[in-house]
Amino acid sequence: MQTITPWIHKVQYYETDQMQVVHHSNFIRWFEECRVHILDEIGYGYDQLEAAGIASPVLTIEAKIGKSVHFGETVKIRAAIEKFDGIRLTLKYEVLRESDDVVCCTGKTGHCFLGADGRPISLKRKFPEVYEAFLALPTDFV
Amino acid sequence: MQTITPWIHKVQYYETDQMQVVHHSNFIRWFEECRVHILDEIGYGYDQLEAAGIASPVLTIEAKIGKSVHFGETVKIRAAIEKFDGIRLTLKYEVLRESDDVVCCTGKTGHCFLGADGRPISLKRKFPEVYEAFLALPTDFV
Amino acid sequence: MQTITPWIHKVQYYETDQMQVVHHSNFIRWFEECRVHILDEIGYGYDQLEAAGIASPVLTIEAKIGKSVHFGETVKIRAAIEKFDGIRLTLKYEVLRESDDVVCCTGKTGHCFLGADGRPISLKRKFPEVYEAFLALPTDFV
Amino acid sequence: MQTITPWIHKVQYYETDQMQVVHHSNFIRWFEECRVHILDEIGYGYDQLEAAGIASPVLTIEAKIGKSVHFGETVKIRAAIEKFDGIRLTLKYEVLRESDDVVCCTGKTGHCFLGADGRPISLKRKFPEVYEAFLALPTDFV
Repeated sequence: MQTITPWIHKVQYYETDQMQVVHHSNFIRWFEECRVHILDEIGYGYDQLEAAGIASPVLTIEAKIGKSVHFGETVKIRAAIEKFDGIRLTLKYEVLRESDDVVCCTGKTGHCFLGADGRPISLKRKFPEVYEAFLALPTDFV
Repeated sequence: MQTITPWIHKVQYYETDQMQVVHHSNFIRWFEECRVHILDEIGYGYDQLEAAGIASPVLTIEAKIGKSVHFGETVKIRAAIEKFDGIRLTLKYEVLRESDDVVCCTGKTGHCFLGADGRPISLKRKFPEVYEAFLALPTDFV
Repeated sequence: MQTITPWIHKVQYYETDQMQVVHHSNFIRWFEECRVHILDEIGYGYDQLEAAGIASPVLTIEAKIGKSVHFGETVKIRAAIEKFDGIRLTLKYEVLRESDDVVCCTGKTGHCFLGADGRPISLKRKFPEVYEAFLALPTDFV
Repeated sequence: MQTITPWIHKVQYYETDQMQVVHHSNFIRWFEECRVHILDEIGYGYDQLEAAGIASPVLTIEAKIGKSVHFGETVKIRAAIEKFDGIRLTLKYEVLRESDDVVCCTGKTGHCFLGADGRPISLKRKFPEVYEAFLALPTDFV
């Protein structure tokens, strides 16, 4: 069974805006940081997927910001699979303030998979072992 | 009647990623560019709102990316009010490729309004003239 | 004789940081915006250079920030050639506040040219017409 | 004697550009990440400095990029004091590829110190204990 750890991110000064909080676009970037991290953890890093000719563009984005995040804080980001059928993938995310585990932001991203020719592929048929690895990802936050 | 023009954005090299397309987080930033632009057009620039002690943080984000956008392209971004009651504001957006008006991305952002003390306010009661100006914003893309 | 216009940039909210000014890394991005703009103006857009197999990576960066730039302001960025011999290119930049033409930031970027194989090339020998176009760029701010 | 550790940064996908390398503006941001990190290590975090009413804007930036950095790589960034007299501070940086310690980028940033009123201050006179802490920073990469 795959162990998935949260992604730890120290909030950077350049991520703040003049409202004195993290600019909301960074949550979307942190989702990506976590997504890349969990792919590394299951042994199929995104750089390896790309090397194998697989791209996985973002088709949909959702985020709900409940608490502002500030410079000086550290956050942990957790991801889990919401839906995956080998063709479409939906991941869900939680951004927690590390000091007290308060959930600051939740979100989702939706993806498809493209082959080297830029056309949609079925991971299940084309890359069954990657498909199996993805299936091993947790479906709830751990 | 307020005339609202689309926001024109030339795609920048630093907005691309190694998939050779605009990184998805930039759509969220372009929504903000357009939001700031239409506030300027109705005569209540976001800098003036802030000077008056009003902040309008982003609470929710949604985006649907249908077509990749590339370096060398110019996009136009249009915004319209989806819902506004003086307390909550939902804006909707369309990102179109300028050369052929193809819609590449659509999205929404949800906002509240905070006063100088950081607490939610009713624009309608506290800043009726700003409230009225917002009401004059189009409710559909023009 | 080539006419080169300054690049106009409206300061964006996401470019600010919690010091309530534009984050310094954006000046480097604005240099790029202007660089791309003047290549467009001489008829050799960076997208066309890339399509022709020419890359022009940044080797050196210098910036001197004399005045902070703020949200709500518009800046114009001017570029000129400092040195160009067909192998190495040094551009210099000025960022001016549009309202009063105060110079807020000056800087330089140094570049080489790489061919499709990722190796340095002489523009003069490999792409003489691009070389000539670059020579037509102003050597002082206009 | 203060122990200063390098700052470890995993290269993120959103930091790449379509040249398939890290966009050069990110080196400037990584310098900041490291700067913030070493202030944390000497016990005067930048958030604490700001809370004490001290700002330390960037006045000058220099960077020399010798090797491209790629997605999938991890870098370590080291900083040391080049010059410090309590009024002006110059830091120098090295970005090394973690896998083989190859130096990919070197650079410098120059800073002054501003008080709560936005005017330059002498750290030495106004905040002698912060001044002393800065003096304890290494003057060479360790």
